Amino acid sequence: MSILTFVGAGQMASALSFPVTQNGHQVRLVGTPLDRDIIDVARKTGFHATLKRQLPPKGVKYYQIEEITAALDGADAVLCGVSSFGVDWFADNILPLIPENIPLLSVTKGMIDLEDGSMITYPHYFASKLPQGKKLSINAIGGPCTSYELADGDHSAVAFCGDDIEILRMFKQLFESPYYHISLSTDVIGVECAVALKNVYALGVSLAVGLAQGPDGTGIQHFNSQAALFGQSMKEMKNLLLLMGGHEDNIIYGAGDLYVTIFGGRTRKIGALLGRGFSFDDAISELEGVTLESIVIATRTARSVRRLAEKGIIDLSDFPLLIHVDNIINNGAAVDIPWKSFETEKI
Amino acid sequence: MSILTFVGAGQMASALSFPVTQNGHQVRLVGTPLDRDIIDVARKTGFHATLKRQLPPKGVKYYQIEEITAALDGADAVLCGVSSFGVDWFADNILPLIPENIPLLSVTKGMIDLEDGSMITYPHYFASKLPQGKKLSINAIGGPCTSYELADGDHSAVAFCGDDIEILRMFKQLFESPYYHISLSTDVIGVECAVALKNVYALGVSLAVGLAQGPDGTGIQHFNSQAALFGQSMKEMKNLLLLMGGHEDNIIYGAGDLYVTIFGGRTRKIGALLGRGFSFDDAISELEGVTLESIVIATRTARSVRRLAEKGIIDLSDFPLLIHVDNIINNGAAVDIPWKSFETEKI
Repeated sequence: MSILTFVGAGQMASALSFPVTQNGHQVRLVGTPLDRDIIDVARKTGFHATLKRQLPPKGVKYYQIEEITAALDGADAVLCGVSSFGVDWFADNILPLIPENIPLLSVTKGMIDLEDGSMITYPHYFASKLPQGKKLSINAIGGPCTSYELADGDHSAVAFCGDDIEILRMFKQLFESPYYHISLSTDVIGVECAVALKNVYALGVSLAVGLAQGPDGTGIQHFNSQAALFGQSMKEMKNLLLLMGGHEDNIIYGAGDLYVTIFGGRTRKIGALLGRGFSFDDAISELEGVTLESIVIATRTARSVRRLAEKGIIDLSDFPLLIHVDNIINNGAAVDIPWKSFETEKI
Repeated sequence: MSILTFVGAGQMASALSFPVTQNGHQVRLVGTPLDRDIIDVARKTGFHATLKRQLPPKGVKYYQIEEITAALDGADAVLCGVSSFGVDWFADNILPLIPENIPLLSVTKGMIDLEDGSMITYPHYFASKLPQGKKLSINAIGGPCTSYELADGDHSAVAFCGDDIEILRMFKQLFESPYYHISLSTDVIGVECAVALKNVYALGVSLAVGLAQGPDGTGIQHFNSQAALFGQSMKEMKNLLLLMGGHEDNIIYGAGDLYVTIFGGRTRKIGALLGRGFSFDDAISELEGVTLESIVIATRTARSVRRLAEKGIIDLSDFPLLIHVDNIINNGAAVDIPWKSFETEKI
């Protein structure tokens, strides 16, 4: 039996307690300061308020953030379960507490753009934030997996990535189950970049959902236009993968993740609202001000691409969908898909 | 004004009469022997019985197959509009009638496997069936485009492929419209292979639709499992593209086409029925015996892959989803997704 400390009691981390406890391991679920109520309720009733599921009846112990030291004591591995908005909090408050010999696995999807236009993954960002001289094995989970379905034991296929294949194999042994299927890759940039980008492009494809629904939202679905944007997304994601130094084979994870993201949740909803003609501000207020990871990653990626284009490293015309999404989000542009700019001639 | 002779009055060819006539060109729509009723009705009323749309009021003339000589007389280009089940009929009866200087554009999607395990595209098959010494420019349309949406003027992005970029540009000029977006490629194998394979894998992904629906068809949709099969499909399609000699960039067309095919029509329906637990024969009879292109192409592709594996050229374990689909269709296997065989380790 191993002991795993999950820091962040959001939906995905909490859903991961199912395969781990079913494998006979123990989970210590630690809430961030934002998870206080979730931990309180779960401790009393076993019910997770946002995942809307009973957590595993055996094998999960609950901790508030003040109990982090006890939660880390004797742990065999740590899971970072914060969203991309909690990355700095995690880096500042939790990374320093994790002993060097305890490997970390992160569920956070996203990337960060730097001043020079380059983008880095969260594992690399975490590594850059470690106290001087400290070494830590930082690994991450990518791939298409919604937390509800994972909690319900539906089949899901993901990739664990990190520098050390032996540590990845150890993590796979802890998490793999008859329904949770894990591939391993040492191409951290490739996996992380692919799954971060899908958020950008899920918003892009969802514009076609809204265009078909029309201003009053009653239009019937069209799929040719969604498929066209899906294909264009794949093309731009492949280019971005290569640009960021990942192997383009990771488009496999990006494609599956793009596919699942288009079907559900807030990214589809905001893309559809924008496609129907809502301004960005109106669309956001329809979502009651929820801050969306797709908006953040689209903004960062576009900022990076624009900087690299200014430097002459890339050509902006290779990313027309990204730039259009960015113009909608950040420059007040109306939705007007640049179809003709998607056309290519390949001789 | 150009004159285009469309041979085959099915849904896709007939839908293509919209952009062409809107561009001021004339379409001569020639029914195959199977299209007799369609032509009869359309000639009288302008209504297309299977496309379920009024065809363009101006610019379309209707011909029965006996009038093919008149229909070809003075034509600037010919469109082959038959389904894959009409390919031999077209090769035997129409190819010999097309003058050498008149280029051909084919909408037929699919591939044919040869005795040695290799697969060829329909343009290459047509070329092999030309009367000895005859030269003809044979081009094709690939990419995600359903005929109903094309007829309704929804945005669609496709690729025209062929050996001669000048002829492709000429075709693009005839067909392109504010809603019909055309890329060009001289990689005929790549485009044709990608769009043929999507039919195989749309069936594969749809198995997850049926597994979620369950035996009685009432289960709710799950997307993690669809996304996992989508990703696996992309991986196998990329491998097949390379194997058949196409550039893997064409996965862009395959992905968009896979996306749209999963949403509609008979391939999704049969995949879902199989996923729910219907035997292949029962599933087919639910569809009232309609012969499906996806079944044909899956069978051909699997036969090709098995032959190449016997020869030691490839490893069957690189195509677990294809082989499973083939075993369901042709060997009476029950649906039992080989999830574990999808897992990879990439160092």
